[in-house]
Amino acid sequence: MGLFLEDLSVGQSAELSRTVGEADIQAFADVTGDTNPVHLDADYAASTSFGERIAHGMLSAGYISAALGTSLPGPGAVYLSQSLNFKRPVRIGDTVVVKVAVTAIDEAKGRVTLSTTCIVGKKAVVDGEAVVLVPKKGA
Amino acid sequence: MGLFLEDLSVGQSAELSRTVGEADIQAFADVTGDTNPVHLDADYAASTSFGERIAHGMLSAGYISAALGTSLPGPGAVYLSQSLNFKRPVRIGDTVVVKVAVTAIDEAKGRVTLSTTCIVGKKAVVDGEAVVLVPKKGA
Repeated sequence: MGLFLEDLSVGQSAELSRTVGEADIQAFADVTGDTNPVHLDADYAASTSFGERIAHGMLSAGYISAALGTSLPGPGAVYLSQSLNFKRPVRIGDTVVVKVAVTAIDEAKGRVTLSTTCIVGKKAVVDGEAVVLVPKKGA
Repeated sequence: MGLFLEDLSVGQSAELSRTVGEADIQAFADVTGDTNPVHLDADYAASTSFGERIAHGMLSAGYISAALGTSLPGPGAVYLSQSLNFKRPVRIGDTVVVKVAVTAIDEAKGRVTLSTTCIVGKKAVVDGEAVVLVPKKGA
């Protein structure tokens, strides 16, 4: 079980990091069916503005889901919405650091808003906002 | 290569469908690190409001990425943003139909907005909006 509404306060944050391997991109393509060659085909990717294969943006979004679903608030929270701005590409070998931080709490509705940012080096690759429904103790 | 800006018009749409197997949920957990027990642990999931294991919301988001990245507009488009509203759970064995449809085209900026909806049965499980940058012919 994760955190309850009463455990949360604005400013609370959590972080995780994942390094993107070539096998992760293939696995993500397999499970989602997103076989866009910019992710899988080195020759095709070399012809694009990225110059090389890049990870699926939704893989970073999956890391955000992992941070929310395993850490803050953790299991028991229900994912209501997520916005995602894809700002920079993630390349093979990049370590994506996900930071989630509570920005607002609606006590009456049990809704918690978190900023959700994925960073590679010192630059944001994805940012956005999540809203989750968090259970109350004894409810 | 996918479609160019000149190939697109408001109302144009595409569809794909994927059936969620138990192995897909495990694979998505493995690749993203999202090991929330509501997705993986039948006993835990039975204790939640869902009553059984559910797929990661971001798996459906991955199907949206697949529709955009392989079909409309297809390879060559750059993903700028995505909003996701998680409306209903997706369960093991559900077939998710993804519908993407062009809702606006900014010719000057090359930006195309699409509605993105995931449907199980006749009900939306995820809806939202994508914005992609689409190349012009000969640019």
